Amino acid sequence: MLSLSERMARLIVHGATPYNAEPPLGRLRASYRTPAADFYVRSHGELPDLETETWRLTVEGGVTLELSLDDLRTRFPRATVTATMQCAGNRRADLRAVAPVSGDPWQAGAIGTAEWTGFRLGDLLRMADVAEGVDRHVAFESHDTVDGRPYGVSIPFAKAMSSETLLAYAMNGEALLPEHGFPVRAVVPGYAGVRSPKWLRRITVQDHPSENPIQAGDYKLYPPNVTAETADPVLGHTIDAMPLNAAICEPARGAVLRAGACRVRGYAVAGDRSVIRVDVSGDGGRTWIQATLEHEPDAPFAWTFWTAELDLPPGEHDLAVRAWDSAGQTQPALPDDVWNHKGYLCTCWHRVRVRVT
Amino acid sequence: MLSLSERMARLIVHGATPYNAEPPLGRLRASYRTPAADFYVRSHGELPDLETETWRLTVEGGVTLELSLDDLRTRFPRATVTATMQCAGNRRADLRAVAPVSGDPWQAGAIGTAEWTGFRLGDLLRMADVAEGVDRHVAFESHDTVDGRPYGVSIPFAKAMSSETLLAYAMNGEALLPEHGFPVRAVVPGYAGVRSPKWLRRITVQDHPSENPIQAGDYKLYPPNVTAETADPVLGHTIDAMPLNAAICEPARGAVLRAGACRVRGYAVAGDRSVIRVDVSGDGGRTWIQATLEHEPDAPFAWTFWTAELDLPPGEHDLAVRAWDSAGQTQPALPDDVWNHKGYLCTCWHRVRVRVT
Repeated sequence: MLSLSERMARLIVHGATPYNAEPPLGRLRASYRTPAADFYVRSHGELPDLETETWRLTVEGGVTLELSLDDLRTRFPRATVTATMQCAGNRRADLRAVAPVSGDPWQAGAIGTAEWTGFRLGDLLRMADVAEGVDRHVAFESHDTVDGRPYGVSIPFAKAMSSETLLAYAMNGEALLPEHGFPVRAVVPGYAGVRSPKWLRRITVQDHPSENPIQAGDYKLYPPNVTAETADPVLGHTIDAMPLNAAICEPARGAVLRAGACRVRGYAVAGDRSVIRVDVSGDGGRTWIQATLEHEPDAPFAWTFWTAELDLPPGEHDLAVRAWDSAGQTQPALPDDVWNHKGYLCTCWHRVRVRVT
Repeated sequence: MLSLSERMARLIVHGATPYNAEPPLGRLRASYRTPAADFYVRSHGELPDLETETWRLTVEGGVTLELSLDDLRTRFPRATVTATMQCAGNRRADLRAVAPVSGDPWQAGAIGTAEWTGFRLGDLLRMADVAEGVDRHVAFESHDTVDGRPYGVSIPFAKAMSSETLLAYAMNGEALLPEHGFPVRAVVPGYAGVRSPKWLRRITVQDHPSENPIQAGDYKLYPPNVTAETADPVLGHTIDAMPLNAAICEPARGAVLRAGACRVRGYAVAGDRSVIRVDVSGDGGRTWIQATLEHEPDAPFAWTFWTAELDLPPGEHDLAVRAWDSAGQTQPALPDDVWNHKGYLCTCWHRVRVRVT
């Protein structure tokens, strides 16, 4: 197995502490289930160093529970979900063409898909005998710290009880790597990665969202006229469910190609909907052809891979992609159409400039 | 009560037989629940003339049932849903700026919201003891005819069993008007109006979608490179769930206004999601302000009304609106971004040119 530093060397590293990195897009597109060593890493603090033997999960808000990893593995039915995880800041770099944005300049690789194995969060909450309700929230607290406080977020109770929402101890059949949340993380399919905390420590069922700054202040979607100075987190939209998006993984930006048939490949993702069509353009969006789609059966929260073949004459060309979801919605064309000062949810057409000789 | 011809005189009539008409947008925006006489009418054939006493509904695919209106009123628990209904061709007129499209040139009025009263379709299907299954479909056949065949469509079984899906005999507390499906129509919230047939005659649970031309051939979403000559209905996307959309109802296109504060009002709709934000522009989309939103509690399938106040200097201005849904998706800017030869699902920013003196 590769060491952490060897794994870091495989990725495009935006920062070492906190460790934030994404794979090159060609490697990301090589496998429908992203190998753990190629999976993007988003951290907000130092990687915690946890031991299986001493780690415990505390559950509060009903009957208080304190459970070991062995308890979790043996006391709940095993559950598996193939789901895409993505950062709310995926593709942020494209927004910088409009105006500066805060945060790491993620390309289109802050996304990956894995087969997550663990057990249903709903089974744990039922064991804790927590009170249900539409106004209730399930708060997570983790072992990593941000500005001296534990990382913390929450999700609506109904999403926590949904059959797709897991606490996972394995990824693609192997124990979680340290940077992916060892020993146990949440997996909240269809939601932004921020709501799937790693290195879990405590779960609390309560009648309000988490008051942790990660939940209450960060990961909010603001209108384009709001700035860092004027942003009021109470008015921002809490980013939970993720929008329709698509990216070209091959060829890479700046590639030099021979004239003729050009195979274009990428991914598309539609949250809790399905991707019904992917349009690919060789002329910046003036004309489009339809890609062939490849989707895992019975994986409603996983991405769709797509492939198209363009016939490209010599010259400079802007390739572009846009997806359509099962409600007939599609993506806006321009970065300016989705720009916000925090650089979240960049869903405009993904463009790749190539030179054909 | 107004006669049918008096009701027609209130609407913008695209055709008398089949009768197709929509209200002026200012009148549409006057009431969250659209009065029946102001509600758009979409017909595919002549209006059937049905009598309460002799009308029967046949249910097939399990235990065959034949039920009178009195049976339906008395044998099932009454259910009510406030839901928006809209034509898949709403706003089609805006697509003609790109290239010709087939079908009536609907403005933004082929939409309305009502309190529908009847009973749950699921209760009827349970009484008929039909076999369930993810690959099953619920087909409707109606009393109106298109090219000599009864109107017919189908919906997926799961949607038919959802608690929001009704067979309705009343609209805003009154019996259905003839043009709205008297005596009984389907109401399939969140889906295109085509899947909520009026003047019901027969319901069949089966293992395939309806083979009626309305279902199998029409109401398909095609890519922009497909023409009437090349369209293959098997490859088109069956329009069921409707996409995010928004329209400016006031001021009207071509209005002449005084310089200064200008109140802009309209609707937004997000299918099975919620509208989280509505942006309004007085300069064609270069800058935006946020509208205040008005949504009925406990009506997840109903539209959101919005109001904004722009400060407009003298001159010609393009007002524009775009909405955002709870997954952080927004609308494309241009008609060209959504153009298709059938003119369905026009979801680009709605623009209204006004002159300010």
